[in-house]
Amino acid sequence: MPELGIHTRLRRSPYYDATVAEGVSAFIPYNNMLLPLAYTDPEAEYRRLTEGVAMWDVGGERQIQLKGPDAAALAQILCPRDLSKAVIGQGKYVAVCDHRGSILNDPIALKIDDDCWWLSIADSDIRMWARCVAAERGMDVDVSEPDVSPLAVQGPDAEDVVASMFGDWVRDLKYFWFGDAELNGIPLKVARSGWSKQGGFELYLMDGSRGIELWNAVKEAGAPWNIGPGYPTPAERMENGLVSWGGDCDDDTNPFEVRLGRFVDLDVPDDVIGIQVLRRIAEEGPKRHQLGIVFEGDDPKPGHLVWYDVLVDGEKVGDMTCGTWSYKLERNIGFGLLSVSTQIGDSVEVRRGDELVPARLTDIPFRREDR
Amino acid sequence: MPELGIHTRLRRSPYYDATVAEGVSAFIPYNNMLLPLAYTDPEAEYRRLTEGVAMWDVGGERQIQLKGPDAAALAQILCPRDLSKAVIGQGKYVAVCDHRGSILNDPIALKIDDDCWWLSIADSDIRMWARCVAAERGMDVDVSEPDVSPLAVQGPDAEDVVASMFGDWVRDLKYFWFGDAELNGIPLKVARSGWSKQGGFELYLMDGSRGIELWNAVKEAGAPWNIGPGYPTPAERMENGLVSWGGDCDDDTNPFEVRLGRFVDLDVPDDVIGIQVLRRIAEEGPKRHQLGIVFEGDDPKPGHLVWYDVLVDGEKVGDMTCGTWSYKLERNIGFGLLSVSTQIGDSVEVRRGDELVPARLTDIPFRREDR
Repeated sequence: MPELGIHTRLRRSPYYDATVAEGVSAFIPYNNMLLPLAYTDPEAEYRRLTEGVAMWDVGGERQIQLKGPDAAALAQILCPRDLSKAVIGQGKYVAVCDHRGSILNDPIALKIDDDCWWLSIADSDIRMWARCVAAERGMDVDVSEPDVSPLAVQGPDAEDVVASMFGDWVRDLKYFWFGDAELNGIPLKVARSGWSKQGGFELYLMDGSRGIELWNAVKEAGAPWNIGPGYPTPAERMENGLVSWGGDCDDDTNPFEVRLGRFVDLDVPDDVIGIQVLRRIAEEGPKRHQLGIVFEGDDPKPGHLVWYDVLVDGEKVGDMTCGTWSYKLERNIGFGLLSVSTQIGDSVEVRRGDELVPARLTDIPFRREDR
Repeated sequence: MPELGIHTRLRRSPYYDATVAEGVSAFIPYNNMLLPLAYTDPEAEYRRLTEGVAMWDVGGERQIQLKGPDAAALAQILCPRDLSKAVIGQGKYVAVCDHRGSILNDPIALKIDDDCWWLSIADSDIRMWARCVAAERGMDVDVSEPDVSPLAVQGPDAEDVVASMFGDWVRDLKYFWFGDAELNGIPLKVARSGWSKQGGFELYLMDGSRGIELWNAVKEAGAPWNIGPGYPTPAERMENGLVSWGGDCDDDTNPFEVRLGRFVDLDVPDDVIGIQVLRRIAEEGPKRHQLGIVFEGDDPKPGHLVWYDVLVDGEKVGDMTCGTWSYKLERNIGFGLLSVSTQIGDSVEVRRGDELVPARLTDIPFRREDR
């Protein structure tokens, strides 16, 4: 694969130098920031995440801050999920949609204060979106991207590592809840969060000049648990059914198509963007659904750069949106965004370059016995 | 530099395979598409562009199509430039701004038909922006990203190459104007355009399945002029003063700060986004301006990943937003986004890592005698 061109538009995270020192071998751009996606040994990094503890530079997961008298109102307008009962310190996973009910991003919405919300975003320009809505509706709210860069600690041992740094209160945090903390004067929020199903935390660094200090402090605290570098890991996230917005969605994907319907509250106010369309889809049912795909054969294949056609009896029924070698199933697996005419157990073919590869549809998350 | 991680979110342009065959060595992400930014010999590629003719995969320069009864009205609302007298076949360079008068993108706005406009965009999500504005204002217009991927032919010999393919009518095209064309049945628009000051054309391929055919046809037609692969070339664009939106702008850069004030028409209607703020800035004057920076010494340095501080008497006066070795000046040059307290001829220091490098401010475009 060719290199990344050097460009000031590709920002470095506060942990960049540390990740280079740790041997990062590939980045992806994420909100115009370089986000590590590989070090040296993918399987060892998968094992570290699923059996121990890994630390991830997810600084590219930017925070979009809504602040001012209309912050809460704007947060609700952007989010088709009921935020009215959220309390300070609580976060909620949301499928932010456009007026057509199509997903624009799937952030965690964090209630920072009565007049302040953060959207901890996936890779699309929600700052621009939120500013447009606020300005067009004449709302009194400032939309910005503050100096906040998460560092994730993920894996079965993550809780012990983070508790050793901040105290046992972090063990009581509910999922997506967070609290203020400090480490040698570094201002942080500690959230139970992260893009894996292994359990873990995100440390929201609030002073970008101190990223290397934080990295080193976590590395030192995690040493007894053999912590090491990692990244949002394709195999783990697919095995466990986490959606990758932008990768698994096209320009017209609604939450019900990608197993996010349970995060939509249909009874939010009518001025919430997209809710009218989402109510209709909820009633009529979506035209596509997301199923697992398990390939026959045990020849590992790397990830892919394009969506693959999925065929039944020679007819295209949808797309395989992502693919990876699963260490758990010892099969190549992927997600299918497929016509609802398909169902679990169906035999399909996947067009990979010039070959048609036999595969079978499964439920998500994947189970070892699905292979 | 590490590799680009493999990801379906990074789309391949229709010319991707051809650029790989030509030996592309680096890409940048551009509107989530891989855009070539290096082949093998930067100086040879610079000479080809400035003395001969080069062909560029600029498929990442996406078209955002506004189509429907309110297309023209929406185009005008998005663009603080008078589009009312534009005719079909005409394009105009525009600084699209947000409600704060800050630049969101600097596309060419092309009038395709009375009810259809394209915005040929730089690297930000104008589709999302346009959809938000249209929906919030209840406008009857469809906003999409059609299957259109430009291939640029740039350099002093570009006109001869393109005329040899399409006929002499292309010689009469005014800058940013375009016409319909066809090549072996491949549907195209041919525009006099391109991100260099060497003269040239962009072939708007309107069928992504035929990118390799188009690439090969241009390569064959250009062979008598020794055409070869190229890309938006940092040295040429900086020497000649082309702005790189996203690279040279921060979150709060207005057109008057980066020499784009002449593309703003202050007398557009009041509902044009940002115009009220732009009128005020035009009256009061901007707080920053963009000047050239010429480093002392002739030791070539590559481009850079971060903005550099620019100092006068030890005080920061602004940022160097881009930098490159200039073959024309045989000096390292860059653009400064600087306090208006600075002026052409000033001596400055630029903080590059741990060193302070002496430099001088110049006018843009750069002239050989400025070194």
